[in-house]
Amino acid sequence: MIVSLRVDADPQAVKRELTALGLWIASVERGLGSGGVQFVVAPHSTGVDPAQVAQIEGVGSVSVPVPEHPQIDQQGPQVMVKGHAIGGPRPTFMCGPCSVESSEQIESIAARVAPLGVTFLRGGAFKPRSSPYNFQGHGDPALTWMREAATRHGLRVVTEVLSEHDVSAVAELADLIQIGSRNMQNFALLKRVGRAHKPVLLKRAMSATIEDWLLAAEYLLHHGASGVVLCERGIRGFDPSTRNLVDLTAVALLAHVHRLPVIVDPSHGTGRRDLILPLSKAALAAGAAGVMIETHDDPGKALSDGPQALRGDELQAVLTQLTEAAR
Amino acid sequence: MIVSLRVDADPQAVKRELTALGLWIASVERGLGSGGVQFVVAPHSTGVDPAQVAQIEGVGSVSVPVPEHPQIDQQGPQVMVKGHAIGGPRPTFMCGPCSVESSEQIESIAARVAPLGVTFLRGGAFKPRSSPYNFQGHGDPALTWMREAATRHGLRVVTEVLSEHDVSAVAELADLIQIGSRNMQNFALLKRVGRAHKPVLLKRAMSATIEDWLLAAEYLLHHGASGVVLCERGIRGFDPSTRNLVDLTAVALLAHVHRLPVIVDPSHGTGRRDLILPLSKAALAAGAAGVMIETHDDPGKALSDGPQALRGDELQAVLTQLTEAAR
Amino acid sequence: MIVSLRVDADPQAVKRELTALGLWIASVERGLGSGGVQFVVAPHSTGVDPAQVAQIEGVGSVSVPVPEHPQIDQQGPQVMVKGHAIGGPRPTFMCGPCSVESSEQIESIAARVAPLGVTFLRGGAFKPRSSPYNFQGHGDPALTWMREAATRHGLRVVTEVLSEHDVSAVAELADLIQIGSRNMQNFALLKRVGRAHKPVLLKRAMSATIEDWLLAAEYLLHHGASGVVLCERGIRGFDPSTRNLVDLTAVALLAHVHRLPVIVDPSHGTGRRDLILPLSKAALAAGAAGVMIETHDDPGKALSDGPQALRGDELQAVLTQLTEAAR
Amino acid sequence: MIVSLRVDADPQAVKRELTALGLWIASVERGLGSGGVQFVVAPHSTGVDPAQVAQIEGVGSVSVPVPEHPQIDQQGPQVMVKGHAIGGPRPTFMCGPCSVESSEQIESIAARVAPLGVTFLRGGAFKPRSSPYNFQGHGDPALTWMREAATRHGLRVVTEVLSEHDVSAVAELADLIQIGSRNMQNFALLKRVGRAHKPVLLKRAMSATIEDWLLAAEYLLHHGASGVVLCERGIRGFDPSTRNLVDLTAVALLAHVHRLPVIVDPSHGTGRRDLILPLSKAALAAGAAGVMIETHDDPGKALSDGPQALRGDELQAVLTQLTEAAR
Repeated sequence: MIVSLRVDADPQAVKRELTALGLWIASVERGLGSGGVQFVVAPHSTGVDPAQVAQIEGVGSVSVPVPEHPQIDQQGPQVMVKGHAIGGPRPTFMCGPCSVESSEQIESIAARVAPLGVTFLRGGAFKPRSSPYNFQGHGDPALTWMREAATRHGLRVVTEVLSEHDVSAVAELADLIQIGSRNMQNFALLKRVGRAHKPVLLKRAMSATIEDWLLAAEYLLHHGASGVVLCERGIRGFDPSTRNLVDLTAVALLAHVHRLPVIVDPSHGTGRRDLILPLSKAALAAGAAGVMIETHDDPGKALSDGPQALRGDELQAVLTQLTEAAR
Repeated sequence: MIVSLRVDADPQAVKRELTALGLWIASVERGLGSGGVQFVVAPHSTGVDPAQVAQIEGVGSVSVPVPEHPQIDQQGPQVMVKGHAIGGPRPTFMCGPCSVESSEQIESIAARVAPLGVTFLRGGAFKPRSSPYNFQGHGDPALTWMREAATRHGLRVVTEVLSEHDVSAVAELADLIQIGSRNMQNFALLKRVGRAHKPVLLKRAMSATIEDWLLAAEYLLHHGASGVVLCERGIRGFDPSTRNLVDLTAVALLAHVHRLPVIVDPSHGTGRRDLILPLSKAALAAGAAGVMIETHDDPGKALSDGPQALRGDELQAVLTQLTEAAR
Repeated sequence: MIVSLRVDADPQAVKRELTALGLWIASVERGLGSGGVQFVVAPHSTGVDPAQVAQIEGVGSVSVPVPEHPQIDQQGPQVMVKGHAIGGPRPTFMCGPCSVESSEQIESIAARVAPLGVTFLRGGAFKPRSSPYNFQGHGDPALTWMREAATRHGLRVVTEVLSEHDVSAVAELADLIQIGSRNMQNFALLKRVGRAHKPVLLKRAMSATIEDWLLAAEYLLHHGASGVVLCERGIRGFDPSTRNLVDLTAVALLAHVHRLPVIVDPSHGTGRRDLILPLSKAALAAGAAGVMIETHDDPGKALSDGPQALRGDELQAVLTQLTEAAR
Repeated sequence: MIVSLRVDADPQAVKRELTALGLWIASVERGLGSGGVQFVVAPHSTGVDPAQVAQIEGVGSVSVPVPEHPQIDQQGPQVMVKGHAIGGPRPTFMCGPCSVESSEQIESIAARVAPLGVTFLRGGAFKPRSSPYNFQGHGDPALTWMREAATRHGLRVVTEVLSEHDVSAVAELADLIQIGSRNMQNFALLKRVGRAHKPVLLKRAMSATIEDWLLAAEYLLHHGASGVVLCERGIRGFDPSTRNLVDLTAVALLAHVHRLPVIVDPSHGTGRRDLILPLSKAALAAGAAGVMIETHDDPGKALSDGPQALRGDELQAVLTQLTEAAR
């Protein structure tokens, strides 16, 4: 926001009024020649009605940013996925293994998580792995195994798509299509997924600004997605003590100011089981619409990300506590 | 942790066992010549008893890091300050203005916050300001004003010291001495403050790793501080949408794994009033021992950081909700 | 690297020897029970022959990391592209517009840059744009325009591919296929591009570690790429004074230690024309194999990234100075 | 800079003209009611005379930021230290050990470096160490040893001060007073050092923005320093492959746009000997006024930072090449 003062205004007095409203002055600028003072208001300032600012004594005019992502700005805080409202009154739980490893594995996990209040079965059929030598997912068969297990247990399916070629298969079998953090700005994929006209879970890239993230959501909506749910899974930090840095400041901002649904993934965010409960509670307290948690019947045999996967009893304890805290 | 395998071990089998325990392999190393395999376990892995690792089939030996900061490691989760346990069963609230501006101002705020369950009055007598042209605090007189107001209302005092020369004055009047984020590695100050034999609130530097932070705490304890409470106030991020990035992953790690008391400062952390409630709730959910929140009777007239200061009614609403959530 | 000491060794003496070789001790670990001391050597330490370390008095054994990306490790510092050696004795210049806007535009630029020692014509036919509402490139026709202009003037073509569907068209017309920073971990694209069996220019993602980057290169080689040239284009920083942060420490490391060819893109790296010359000189001094610089006949009419594009006379001055400095 | 358009202006046409000048539009804002368009120009844009912008067809008025640090803005690119111009036509070399360990050690090093074109002897008498258990420097005696060695060999002295109490001693014996990165925003120290009326070498804090850094320099000048030389020593990065990240983009910006003298410290910046030569060359090419390089007669016996210290022959080779490159 730019606040332009009248030439006869008292800049200190105007600054006091802006401060009282919670606005930070990012820079003070002075017009060339006999021009007056202009304040650029910091983007991290609180939400205030510009019309109210315009009425401050001494303010000549107020300009506001032209919207860059109008569709996501107007989406609202709820996204419906097969009758379930993500962003509704109760938190959404998305649980399952990192990778779908077999028909039996996913059936067993679906059967286990369904009674715990979980509404989405998660699991990777196509896996983005940093190394070409690691397990890359079972692909199409895994999609089918997961769909069948989910249907048997009344669960919805959320799963990641990596390749443009797989979008139609994933769109057919998944209820919510996941875009992974490494593909947040894979615009060819965003366009193709948008054209599937389904709801999408968009993970934040490792160092995406909130603006980048919202623009990626705009791509999806512009190309036809029926809704976008954001997913914070930890950003790149500088501290080796934690695997990633779960940015709950961004979650609070998106939930309370932008009023958009955000799911938090503490499994990838922290990489360690013993922090999943406190960070899940913190995520919901910050305004998250739900959490995505990895679970495995035998983490030691998981084909990917075993160390962060909760065992069945651990998951049950976590979900019980989250459900109680959300009451 | 280094896990050395016996020469005849099956590395995949050992890896499965480590994974089942929640441990990540940071690197796989192979001995020169006919040496066996060694795994370096990532520092962000979960806490596991090394003796348990040593008993895994195929493991020859296990080494663990030599402690670098033994005193803070053994401090424990509670620090007593004049009869109040920070890190005890109930969250600690530290509230007050950014700067102590006058005897009347601090008296008025102390009177207002005392009935709300606040146990510490905060306020700056000496202010670290990025620009030499900004208000630098009222200094010694402000210390006295704050001490008197606190005493009248049964509050404890926490306030920052910037200069070695002011340590004795601050130590005499404050109950908890604050080291600001810009001085976290001002070792001359840490030594001098340690020698005051008082409890200290140590704010994290803008880009300090957790290891840096614990070593700074170690300086304080080594030189005589009676206890160290850590304070997360937002780290340097890359996103202009938020002023800083409140690192609740670090808070959860310190609270649940290191078992140390951490206060979170959402006022500096976010810079915006409308996020203070959700981030305070999230901080407590993540394991914080309390929160530090700025308040001002008239934020527009604050001599520093007005935009982030809650008005009286706003603070009351926030503390009521935090108290309820903590029950 | 892990250095295991004999039980009777003097750890301080061994540490002195390691230090003398330029090695940093990342952590000191002690074996459970009566175990000896082990040092984990920091990954940022200098290159040293492990056999030399093994002969230090008191060292029992030395382990070295198992290679994670053997193919890129063995590629070597030169990549041949249609008879031109990137990483050869003279720096490689890649110049052209951000976007290929018309047949006439690219012809005019090709004619202008060819006499300046430029060997690659760069230009985008498919453009990754943060917003869906920005110009996305002219696509296939632009590829043809660029190929024809390049051929007429004896230039090679480097251009980005965004979609798996466009790989065959790009592979047919380009000499060097560019993967943009937003797609560095778009593994579906990496696999598809690898299968084109051509040399690839792989830009670093905004917050990729060097390890991530090398693993992405490994994907390309593993799937068939004939060579990989790395391209540093600025990483995500925290300072709004510069658009990105050109990481010449990484360039020096890759060039001198990993011995791989790295091109630096100061146009995207800095976003400002007046820093392109000093950063180009610095890049070559740090060990870069060449630079990629944007140019436009009329930057005000560029369809993308005009502010950073050098005008013809500016480019000529820059290349003249770089050529002289490289002598 | 804010560019306000006339109500009848064509925003696209104005944008083209701004782009042609190298200016980036950070945000497009529109006045409430019938107000016109305003462009906020990004701070990382190129330097342009605002009067030129004001003359663009359609521009109504132009505002420029009110200077926040007028004294450092006007200092200029050269700082004289005892007759030597840092920022003059030839690069300045500052060499010596990390810590001053004995009278003999510093004498030997001074004798060795003086003939190599080095003008400043560097060395720590007071050492900022992350751990309280590490060597903290020999203090006052080390100052004297260094002063005497420097004088005998016609060298100037640069050394760090950590405590307000030591400022007068350091100011008496050093020619250039160093503020370390951990104290860049230790405002009590900045004020005290300023009052010594000497030239100061101000190292950048690990995550300081350029604006923070310039404001710290302003503190020094405002309180009386006779000149400020900036020193880039590597910022906090996210990649464990390098110890820090030497930010040569910042160096180029400060040298070429702000026109201030910057020294680069590749020893701390990289932590490894084999990158000191390429990064020193790159630093000078980017516009640095000189480099600060650690050297030790026997790095294995250094009391601090031995792995990064060049041996005598290595330093000689580096300085010879830098001198040749600078011709």
